[in-house]
Amino acid sequence: MQMMFEYNWDVREDWFKWCGEISEAELLEKRTGGVGGILHTLFHIIDVEWSWIRSLQGKSDFNESFEQYRSIRQVRELEASFRPEVEAFVLNWNDGLENREFRDVTPDGREELDTWGEVMRHMIAHEIHHIGQLSVWAREIDRKPVSANLIGRGLASGIR
Amino acid sequence: MQMMFEYNWDVREDWFKWCGEISEAELLEKRTGGVGGILHTLFHIIDVEWSWIRSLQGKSDFNESFEQYRSIRQVRELEASFRPEVEAFVLNWNDGLENREFRDVTPDGREELDTWGEVMRHMIAHEIHHIGQLSVWAREIDRKPVSANLIGRGLASGIR
Repeated sequence: MQMMFEYNWDVREDWFKWCGEISEAELLEKRTGGVGGILHTLFHIIDVEWSWIRSLQGKSDFNESFEQYRSIRQVRELEASFRPEVEAFVLNWNDGLENREFRDVTPDGREELDTWGEVMRHMIAHEIHHIGQLSVWAREIDRKPVSANLIGRGLASGIR
Repeated sequence: MQMMFEYNWDVREDWFKWCGEISEAELLEKRTGGVGGILHTLFHIIDVEWSWIRSLQGKSDFNESFEQYRSIRQVRELEASFRPEVEAFVLNWNDGLENREFRDVTPDGREELDTWGEVMRHMIAHEIHHIGQLSVWAREIDRKPVSANLIGRGLASGIR
């Protein structure tokens, strides 16, 4: 489980560096699909990851809008403020938590029952999916996207 | 590990159904980013998944081009022919395989050392990333993409 979060954090850092070479106008430009923009996507990924970690722990959620975070600096600061709690939760994950029940109410009012294991994998897939969207938008502005490869990042400890 | 493969197969099936409502011209249309088209992406996902499963087992690879598979029917048939071997490998996965070493030679000739656990997660991330690209292209042709949600698919056995 941890390895895929580390993959996501590593890829996310690569995208932040990539953003440093792109004009702010391009980062904020409205685009088709997903949440509709490059920097907004990074904000959304960070927001959703933290919100799930908070929800699993029965803590209050994050509900601010992207309008308050329209620069790389602000999105990075937001991430830095969330990271310790996210990391502590993820790095302390163990198989005993896998089947804990999480009851959620969907936007249309139905009660949904998920396991913590499902929620964790939902978070992982959520980020990778949105990063896939960034890769298309990158090509649309004639930029090479960040590599999505998981191998080659040295994520398996102890074999290199 | 298995749950994320099952997620990918479930989402992939949803995309095949989605493709059934789209004209063949749209499915084959050249698009920006990724491998450059909707049906080509599904072909590529299926090709790469099977190729990795084969490589891990030291078996021969799949090297055919998309040019021979330019219809939903052909891509689905290819998937059906690969599925039993992929499924057998994934469903028999166990933690004891996690740190097995896989030596690969990159396109530029370097030898790379990965663990089987890394390769499996690489395969998972690879598909989710490409599906994210489909979601942008779907919006570009004014279609609602398939949901990328992992929760709500009943993937955790025994709690529903």
